[in-house]
Amino acid sequence: MKPLALTMGDPAGIGGELTLRAWLELRNTGRCFVALDDPARLAALAHAVGLDVSIREVQQPDLAESVFADALPVLPVRLATPPRAGVPDSANAAAIIGSIERATKLAIAGSVGGVVTNPINKAALYAAGFAYPGHTEFLAALTGAVGQQVMMLASPGLRVVPVTVHASLRDSIAMLTTELILGTARTTAAALRRDFGIMQPRLAVAGLNPHAGESGALGDEETTIIGPAIHALRADDEDVTGPWPPDTMFTTTARKRFDVAICMYHDQGLIPLKTLDMDHGVNVTLGLPIVRTSPDHGTAFDIAGKGVADPSSLIAALGLAAGIAARRQ
Amino acid sequence: MKPLALTMGDPAGIGGELTLRAWLELRNTGRCFVALDDPARLAALAHAVGLDVSIREVQQPDLAESVFADALPVLPVRLATPPRAGVPDSANAAAIIGSIERATKLAIAGSVGGVVTNPINKAALYAAGFAYPGHTEFLAALTGAVGQQVMMLASPGLRVVPVTVHASLRDSIAMLTTELILGTARTTAAALRRDFGIMQPRLAVAGLNPHAGESGALGDEETTIIGPAIHALRADDEDVTGPWPPDTMFTTTARKRFDVAICMYHDQGLIPLKTLDMDHGVNVTLGLPIVRTSPDHGTAFDIAGKGVADPSSLIAALGLAAGIAARRQ
Repeated sequence: MKPLALTMGDPAGIGGELTLRAWLELRNTGRCFVALDDPARLAALAHAVGLDVSIREVQQPDLAESVFADALPVLPVRLATPPRAGVPDSANAAAIIGSIERATKLAIAGSVGGVVTNPINKAALYAAGFAYPGHTEFLAALTGAVGQQVMMLASPGLRVVPVTVHASLRDSIAMLTTELILGTARTTAAALRRDFGIMQPRLAVAGLNPHAGESGALGDEETTIIGPAIHALRADDEDVTGPWPPDTMFTTTARKRFDVAICMYHDQGLIPLKTLDMDHGVNVTLGLPIVRTSPDHGTAFDIAGKGVADPSSLIAALGLAAGIAARRQ
Repeated sequence: MKPLALTMGDPAGIGGELTLRAWLELRNTGRCFVALDDPARLAALAHAVGLDVSIREVQQPDLAESVFADALPVLPVRLATPPRAGVPDSANAAAIIGSIERATKLAIAGSVGGVVTNPINKAALYAAGFAYPGHTEFLAALTGAVGQQVMMLASPGLRVVPVTVHASLRDSIAMLTTELILGTARTTAAALRRDFGIMQPRLAVAGLNPHAGESGALGDEETTIIGPAIHALRADDEDVTGPWPPDTMFTTTARKRFDVAICMYHDQGLIPLKTLDMDHGVNVTLGLPIVRTSPDHGTAFDIAGKGVADPSSLIAALGLAAGIAARRQ
């Protein structure tokens, strides 16, 4: 198994602490990763939060495995200025972006099994000229991805894919089209086969409105937009059900009937996922040529540097990326 | 304790079976109720689904208690035609409506402690000239309620109040106003004091958009509509927080920080409630002069008459109504 590349994320956030804690948890498991980060800042952070972590600078990812049991291997990406916990600084934007770029190039070259990204603060990057809405679009550009990329959130008991993501609820409704639902579902089904080994994935498509519109009394998107996408997926021979009433599709019983829920808006998928399991959700980008996962939370500036951040989601993200990488090899 | 009045609901649905099963569960607990239903149809139904339930016709609710341990007390409301499971018949609309009317009058008169309603099928009632959107509006008219009525869904671990309920998602967004949120929250806070004994209720107000709008990047309703309602509630000396990011406000940790979530639309509140606990949710109408609860599900025509319907939610609704009635007395 090749190591995974773990990016720095915003060094004012909790990413560094999570990297250190993930290494402490995984060092004896053989699930190896290499951090693309500033070795000096990681060493200072380990000291500050009282974690006993040795840092080992390496110049190539293939050296990571031999040191992983003894030290956290770090491919150096130097910061311009020492980070202050909770206070993002656009002076470090180039390093944050550089960490993502280098990890992606290593994945394209096949030197790492995949990329796991620590959380970034987009505002700090925009101030430095970053031109992408987020990680996903940046990675799509770097890898020359074709087709539609899709964000899947996966926890041990539930996988959800929101068709619309980072837009207001009003705009999300306006953005919904049959084509967008269809493209999202097709990318999802292909990824469940290739990356998750589910050869005939069961797709559950959510309605948009209360009670899935109640035969048109509470909205018609189920008939005009969602229904035609379901018909087209059936014509593809996909195993697809819906449109489901959103409030009853995530119960314990209902969840057993599908492998993934295709959701019409961000919170329709993320409310049940986070309500059921806050700590182990993983964000997986489907439809990229490289493997990419990330923890399902942000930079958490409010608790950064205090040594209290929970690495569960990052560790789950590393585990899922390793599983997908193994399946692709 | 006065008995509760339990309405018939649509006799083609699962209400009758639930009534029979609830009596079997509660007969020895002293938590007495009287069904406003057709004694002959209940006896036939008990026989058909193999439940050993004696039916006792009573003419006054105060006779219910003395028979409750031995038989299900029924205040007769005769059907026009024998019901067929799963097939609603508007010939029985008058009896369905009459059951609700009589139960409500008994509650107004103080002869019963409150009203618990079995599910109705609105389409069948509309066909017979029923002019209300649902139970709540009908009960408000019958009781001459003033102010705003509010639907609360309560399960053992979570209470949610959707500000907008039975409208398309698009219309729900358009209906949101500061006044509507404020009226909903005020009715809710008053009911938590009066009916639930929570003297300083902690209200958590949800945002509308992903990440509660992310400072305006993903929608502005948090600033223009929801924020002013929160300010006004603080001026009332209410203990109120928000607007909360919708996807993280229902986690195990977050739920401990509030007594009720004020939600912007139906599924924002009902997805987490049903995802966490499908079987024990209860619908409580706040802001009525009488006590009224109902199970948190519909007529379930697809399984009616098969003897498989789960009475958990109805039993929870009877328990909650009894608790509220006791607190009011």
